[in-house]
Amino acid sequence: MEKILSYIESNHERYLSELKELLAIPSVSSQTERKPEMRRAAEWLKNHMTNIGLQNMQILETGGHPVVYADWLGAAGKPTILVYGHYDVQPEDPVDLWKTPPFEATIRGENLYGRGASDDKGQIFIHLKAIEAFLKNGGALPMNIKIIFEGEEEIGSENLAKFISEHKELLKADVIVISDSGMFAKGVPSVTYALRGLAYMEVEVTGPNGDLHSGSFGGSVHNPIQALTEMIASLHDKNGRITVKGMYDDVRPLTKAERAAFKELPWSDKKYAKSLGLKQLYGEKGFTTLERLWARPTLECNGIWGGYTGEGAKTVLPAKAFAKISMRLVPDQSSEKIAKLFEKHFKAIAPKTVSVHVRNLHGGEPAITPVDSPGVQAAVVALEKGFGKKPLYQREGGSIPIVVDFKKLLGIDSVLLGFGLPDENAHAPNEFLNLDNFFGGIKTVAHYYKEFPNFWKTGNRKK
Amino acid sequence: MEKILSYIESNHERYLSELKELLAIPSVSSQTERKPEMRRAAEWLKNHMTNIGLQNMQILETGGHPVVYADWLGAAGKPTILVYGHYDVQPEDPVDLWKTPPFEATIRGENLYGRGASDDKGQIFIHLKAIEAFLKNGGALPMNIKIIFEGEEEIGSENLAKFISEHKELLKADVIVISDSGMFAKGVPSVTYALRGLAYMEVEVTGPNGDLHSGSFGGSVHNPIQALTEMIASLHDKNGRITVKGMYDDVRPLTKAERAAFKELPWSDKKYAKSLGLKQLYGEKGFTTLERLWARPTLECNGIWGGYTGEGAKTVLPAKAFAKISMRLVPDQSSEKIAKLFEKHFKAIAPKTVSVHVRNLHGGEPAITPVDSPGVQAAVVALEKGFGKKPLYQREGGSIPIVVDFKKLLGIDSVLLGFGLPDENAHAPNEFLNLDNFFGGIKTVAHYYKEFPNFWKTGNRKK
Repeated sequence: MEKILSYIESNHERYLSELKELLAIPSVSSQTERKPEMRRAAEWLKNHMTNIGLQNMQILETGGHPVVYADWLGAAGKPTILVYGHYDVQPEDPVDLWKTPPFEATIRGENLYGRGASDDKGQIFIHLKAIEAFLKNGGALPMNIKIIFEGEEEIGSENLAKFISEHKELLKADVIVISDSGMFAKGVPSVTYALRGLAYMEVEVTGPNGDLHSGSFGGSVHNPIQALTEMIASLHDKNGRITVKGMYDDVRPLTKAERAAFKELPWSDKKYAKSLGLKQLYGEKGFTTLERLWARPTLECNGIWGGYTGEGAKTVLPAKAFAKISMRLVPDQSSEKIAKLFEKHFKAIAPKTVSVHVRNLHGGEPAITPVDSPGVQAAVVALEKGFGKKPLYQREGGSIPIVVDFKKLLGIDSVLLGFGLPDENAHAPNEFLNLDNFFGGIKTVAHYYKEFPNFWKTGNRKK
Repeated sequence: MEKILSYIESNHERYLSELKELLAIPSVSSQTERKPEMRRAAEWLKNHMTNIGLQNMQILETGGHPVVYADWLGAAGKPTILVYGHYDVQPEDPVDLWKTPPFEATIRGENLYGRGASDDKGQIFIHLKAIEAFLKNGGALPMNIKIIFEGEEEIGSENLAKFISEHKELLKADVIVISDSGMFAKGVPSVTYALRGLAYMEVEVTGPNGDLHSGSFGGSVHNPIQALTEMIASLHDKNGRITVKGMYDDVRPLTKAERAAFKELPWSDKKYAKSLGLKQLYGEKGFTTLERLWARPTLECNGIWGGYTGEGAKTVLPAKAFAKISMRLVPDQSSEKIAKLFEKHFKAIAPKTVSVHVRNLHGGEPAITPVDSPGVQAAVVALEKGFGKKPLYQREGGSIPIVVDFKKLLGIDSVLLGFGLPDENAHAPNEFLNLDNFFGGIKTVAHYYKEFPNFWKTGNRKK
């Protein structure tokens, strides 16, 4: 391992100049005119993976942009890690807000600036450079590896689920490592082991059979906007708990260890509220902010509309009012079950003065990789070795659909080993990657490759 | 009076053919290209008023379309009635839904179909024909009369308040008669003696300092849409009463006589609800539907918006939510005072998790002409004589700003003596006027001219 690490140490300059080459390709997946650039990025990766000693390089077609695949399967009897990342990037607009050109990666201070530096080319490069360090120093990895880099993450990974289900055998592995997210904060290496799911609904409340004049009819009719506000207002109780019947039935309680782990993270409610411009935070009583964000279901009104919304005054008593209402779900809730519970509840609370229609627009399952699983435990050790600091555990409040797809279609848990920072402008001008995290990331990943087989072998898990 | 009435009776055919002439002029005030038609209608009225024996005909310029004025002031020592109406009409679109051309008035069954037949050319013609009957049979009216027909009622009477305040002397009168509304129902002659006012507000609720991702932030922030729904929901109590502090302080209670009068009107909650497509009506407990519509303040949400309102799902936790909220006011509430009470209340109920901005968009005062005033009492007698049936009292839930302007600027009460019907398609294709109501209206107005001086002379009022 000594040799590996010193190889990494002595190749900083070259690693950066190679990454700059990859960052110079404007592989913006959402823009049709850049389809050739997408292909060019895929070809660049294929060549680069060949150069570093990976095998079976393939550019696999999908309904959209291709998936780049490679593997190295020379470690007989050892487990297999599947690494996922993406080579497509967000558009660079608005270009004039960039201090240096988006596709000419530039070092300023301790950061590398350029579109894709953090999301996700810099992070997939972390894996490639760790792999190179092994293959160029002894010609072998401590375990088997498979790599897929997709080209449609920034446009919703529309073709990925189909791709996975069509390549189940090819993608067989023991754990999936995704480096497409962030550390909790600068200097706080962390491993993300759970994500929330989603049940996204649209509700339509109908009162009278047409828009009415609020003067001639006001006082006789239950205004559907009023009815909708009354119904939405009733969806939380005074303790901030969701009132939908059965909502908490399947919620996996936080363990004492998890609650203790979250408390170790550097966090200030006061600073957080200030950064959001708020005098006071809000949420379910009995839980800290991080607990509420990561491990408790929430219900949000994502949109509401009805009646006259233009300039000035119109005295309408509208026929209809609408809202988009979504619930973030946590293990072991099911999106479909919650959607049904919501629909049932919303219909049950509708007053007789209106009629209600509920649509289920979209859903996604929550995901959790047990903290005592080999994948997570190896990450903890690797992060400590890579950054010289004990890492912390975190969850993520949002949803990452590919994690759910991998679990559903391949039956494999994912570990989120992210090296970005929350303020790296991932989808904005002046995106950057912190160089300490880049090189610390390469060392961490090298350690992960070394450690995972040990944890996998000892089967260090409770269930 | 015998002679007057028989003159009216024997001139039905001519009255109708003259009205058809007026209805043939497409005086649509909202369409610039029809400005010449507006002028043509004003000239036609000026000529017609000359022909029937009125005096001092003038076409008075305003910032927009002109006001047509005429008078007959030959009844020394008698009171003066000011008649208000309008000669502009709504656009005829969509033309293809008209069974007969909108500007070729046509009799079908017992109705006269054509744009402006009911709103308001047919109704101003009722006055002109009653005046003619007097002036052509003895050369005198039983009282003095002044007439103003405006040309901008359908576009908000923007220039009328200024016109009134610039012609206070010219418009001096003892009562104003407005024939631009309806009877309660076919065969139910009625007099309208009160209108509701309005206080129209817009509220803006701000949560975080920018739109947030509902996954990453949901559970820590009070969603401003949720906060807004909670605030709006709290504006009515479980009895349908408005909770704004002080809302009912100045509400003039309905008298026993008024409540009894409303109960005489032919009304069915069941039929009304069915016509609106509702299973159940809504409103303040302790009052009948007509009482709530006419004599109780109401609070309506005229519009609401915030967050994502497009197609599909967007997981936003928005920074802001908005609503337009208006209150219908009844005597003796003041629009300005209620707007202030609302603002104070809305700010008081805002939770600390959000900030609130309240704007007063628009206001108008309620109006009431005492039922025992000469103007209303003369209407009751005239309607009974004109239609052979005891008329009923009604109020109107909407606002008619000119009534408030007349009261504020001239100090004169208005009596609403309307001969339209609720289903006459006033602003829609196939507008019509019922011919029984047209001729009954002419007789009623003739009786009104005769009766008003009697009531005025005897001063038959309680205060």
